[in-house]
Amino acid sequence: MVKVKVYVTLKEGVLDPQGKAIEQALSTMNIDNVNDMHVGKYMEFILEESATENDNEQIEMMCEQLLSNPVIEDYRYETEEVVTA
Amino acid sequence: MVKVKVYVTLKEGVLDPQGKAIEQALSTMNIDNVNDMHVGKYMEFILEESATENDNEQIEMMCEQLLSNPVIEDYRYETEEVVTA
Repeated sequence: MVKVKVYVTLKEGVLDPQGKAIEQALSTMNIDNVNDMHVGKYMEFILEESATENDNEQIEMMCEQLLSNPVIEDYRYETEEVVTA
Repeated sequence: MVKVKVYVTLKEGVLDPQGKAIEQALSTMNIDNVNDMHVGKYMEFILEESATENDNEQIEMMCEQLLSNPVIEDYRYETEEVVTA
Protein backbone atom coordinates (compact mmCIF):
# COMPACT_ATOMS: atom_id res chain seq x y z
CA MET A 1 0.00 0.00 0.00
CA VAL A 2 1.55 3.29 -1.04
CA LYS A 3 0.50 6.91 -0.80
CA VAL A 4 0.94 8.62 -4.14
CA LYS A 5 1.24 12.38 -4.69
CA VAL A 6 0.85 13.61 -8.23
CA TYR A 7 1.73 17.13 -9.41
CA VAL A 8 0.37 18.25 -12.75
CA THR A 9 1.71 21.45 -14.26
CA LEU A 10 1.28 23.16 -17.59
CA LYS A 11 4.09 22.61 -20.07
CA GLU A 12 6.39 25.53 -20.64
CA GLY A 13 5.02 27.90 -23.22
CA VAL A 14 1.39 27.00 -22.57
CA LEU A 15 -0.69 30.02 -21.59
CA ASP A 16 -1.53 30.00 -17.88
CA PRO A 17 -4.53 32.33 -17.45
CA GLN A 18 -5.06 31.27 -13.83
CA GLY A 19 -1.50 32.22 -12.98
CA LYS A 20 -1.89 35.56 -14.74
CA ALA A 21 -5.13 36.23 -12.85
CA ILE A 22 -3.37 35.61 -9.55
CA GLU A 23 -0.54 37.93 -10.53
CA GLN A 24 -3.06 40.66 -11.34
CA ALA A 25 -4.91 40.08 -8.07
CA LEU A 26 -1.61 40.38 -6.23
CA SER A 27 -0.82 43.66 -7.88
CA THR A 28 -4.18 45.06 -6.74
CA MET A 29 -3.08 44.01 -3.24
CA ASN A 30 0.08 46.09 -3.78
CA ILE A 31 2.27 43.01 -3.92
CA ASP A 32 4.65 43.33 -6.81
CA ASN A 33 7.58 41.16 -5.83
CA VAL A 34 6.00 37.95 -7.11
CA ASN A 35 6.89 36.61 -10.54
CA ASP A 36 6.40 33.52 -12.66
CA MET A 37 3.20 32.39 -10.98
CA HIS A 38 2.11 29.01 -12.25
CA VAL A 39 -0.98 27.10 -11.20
CA GLY A 40 -1.27 23.35 -11.41
CA LYS A 41 -3.09 20.46 -9.84
CA TYR A 42 -2.12 18.35 -6.90
CA MET A 43 -3.63 14.93 -6.31
CA GLU A 44 -3.03 12.37 -3.63
CA PHE A 45 -4.38 8.88 -3.25
CA ILE A 46 -3.79 5.51 -1.69
CA LEU A 47 -2.79 2.73 -4.05
CA GLU A 48 -3.60 -0.73 -2.76
CA GLU A 49 -1.77 -3.72 -4.10
CA SER A 50 -1.05 -2.92 -7.72
CA ALA A 51 -2.83 -4.72 -10.55
CA THR A 52 0.04 -4.27 -12.97
CA GLU A 53 3.59 -5.47 -12.61
CA ASN A 54 4.69 -2.57 -10.50
CA ASP A 55 3.14 0.48 -8.92
CA ASN A 56 4.93 2.99 -11.12
CA GLU A 57 3.55 1.45 -14.26
CA GLN A 58 -0.01 1.84 -13.02
CA ILE A 59 0.57 5.37 -11.73
CA GLU A 60 2.02 6.50 -15.05
CA MET A 61 -0.87 4.95 -16.93
CA MET A 62 -3.36 6.75 -14.67
CA CYS A 63 -1.49 10.05 -15.08
CA GLU A 64 -1.36 9.78 -18.85
CA GLN A 65 -4.89 8.61 -19.40
CA LEU A 66 -6.85 10.43 -16.74
CA LEU A 67 -5.06 12.74 -14.34
CA SER A 68 -3.23 14.92 -16.83
CA ASN A 69 -3.61 16.06 -20.40
CA PRO A 70 -0.27 15.04 -21.92
CA VAL A 71 -0.69 17.48 -24.80
CA ILE A 72 -0.39 20.55 -22.60
CA GLU A 73 0.57 19.24 -19.18
CA ASP A 74 3.52 17.56 -17.51
CA TYR A 75 3.25 15.42 -14.42
CA ARG A 76 5.55 14.14 -11.74
CA TYR A 77 4.80 11.98 -8.75
CA GLU A 78 6.16 10.78 -5.44
CA THR A 79 5.29 7.60 -3.62
CA GLU A 80 5.70 6.72 0.00
CA GLU A 81 5.08 3.37 1.63
CA VAL A 82 2.18 3.40 4.09
CA VAL A 83 2.96 1.39 7.17
CA THR A 84 -0.09 -0.25 8.66
CA ALA A 85 0.15 -1.33 12.26
CA MET B 1 15.03 35.39 -4.36
CA VAL B 2 13.22 32.19 -3.45
CA LYS B 3 11.10 29.73 -5.37
CA VAL B 4 7.91 28.99 -3.46
CA LYS B 5 5.72 25.93 -3.90
CA VAL B 6 2.27 26.06 -2.36
CA TYR B 7 -0.03 23.07 -1.94
CA VAL B 8 -3.69 23.75 -1.21
CA THR B 9 -5.88 20.84 -0.13
CA LEU B 10 -9.42 20.57 1.13
CA LYS B 11 -9.77 20.23 4.88
CA GLU B 12 -10.71 16.83 6.17
CA GLY B 13 -14.45 16.29 6.08
CA VAL B 14 -15.05 18.71 3.23
CA LEU B 15 -16.75 17.06 0.27
CA ASP B 16 -14.35 16.50 -2.62
CA PRO B 17 -16.50 16.03 -5.74
CA GLN B 18 -13.49 16.21 -8.07
CA GLY B 19 -11.82 13.37 -6.19
CA LYS B 20 -15.01 11.33 -6.31
CA ALA B 21 -15.34 11.94 -10.05
CA ILE B 22 -11.81 10.65 -10.60
CA GLU B 23 -12.52 7.56 -8.51
CA GLN B 24 -15.60 6.85 -10.62
CA ALA B 25 -13.67 7.39 -13.84
CA LEU B 26 -11.03 4.96 -12.59
CA SER B 27 -13.60 2.31 -11.89
CA THR B 28 -14.92 2.62 -15.45
CA MET B 29 -11.29 1.97 -16.47
CA ASN B 30 -11.40 -1.20 -14.35
CA ILE B 31 -9.00 0.22 -11.81
CA ASP B 32 -10.31 -0.47 -8.36
CA ASN B 33 -7.22 -0.48 -6.19
CA VAL B 34 -7.20 3.29 -5.72
CA ASN B 35 -8.70 4.84 -2.61
CA ASP B 36 -8.89 8.18 -0.87
CA MET B 37 -8.42 10.29 -3.97
CA HIS B 38 -8.11 13.95 -3.10
CA VAL B 39 -7.64 16.80 -5.52
CA GLY B 40 -6.00 20.07 -4.61
CA LYS B 41 -4.13 22.94 -6.14
CA TYR B 42 -0.44 23.39 -6.67
CA MET B 43 1.12 26.77 -7.23
CA GLU B 44 4.68 27.85 -7.73
CA PHE B 45 6.18 31.27 -8.04
CA ILE B 46 9.33 33.30 -7.64
CA LEU B 47 9.41 35.69 -4.72
CA GLU B 48 11.82 38.56 -5.18
CA GLU B 49 13.14 40.43 -2.19
CA SER B 50 10.34 40.38 0.35
CA ALA B 51 8.41 43.51 1.23
CA THR B 52 7.61 42.33 4.75
CA GLU B 53 10.02 41.39 7.48
CA ASN B 54 10.55 37.89 6.23
CA ASP B 55 9.47 35.78 3.30
CA ASN B 56 7.30 33.38 5.30
CA GLU B 57 5.16 36.21 6.62
CA GLN B 58 4.37 37.38 3.10
CA ILE B 59 3.77 33.87 1.80
CA GLU B 60 1.34 33.09 4.60
CA MET B 61 -0.50 36.34 4.03
CA MET B 62 -0.80 35.54 0.30
CA CYS B 63 -2.01 32.01 1.05
CA GLU B 64 -4.62 33.17 3.52
CA GLN B 65 -5.94 36.10 1.53
CA LEU B 66 -5.71 34.89 -2.03
CA LEU B 67 -4.34 31.45 -2.80
CA SER B 68 -6.55 29.40 -0.50
CA ASN B 69 -9.95 29.62 1.10
CA PRO B 70 -9.13 29.14 4.79
CA VAL B 71 -12.70 28.13 5.60
CA ILE B 72 -12.50 24.89 3.66
CA GLU B 73 -8.86 24.55 2.62
CA ASP B 74 -5.51 23.96 4.25
CA TYR B 75 -2.24 25.03 2.74
CA ARG B 76 1.39 24.18 3.14
CA TYR B 77 4.41 25.52 1.34
CA GLU B 78 8.06 24.92 0.65
CA THR B 79 10.68 27.46 -0.26
CA GLU B 80 14.00 27.01 -1.91
CA GLU B 81 16.67 29.62 -2.48
CA VAL B 82 17.25 30.43 -6.15
CA VAL B 83 20.90 30.88 -6.91
CA THR B 84 21.54 33.36 -9.69
CA ALA B 85 24.87 33.10 -11.42
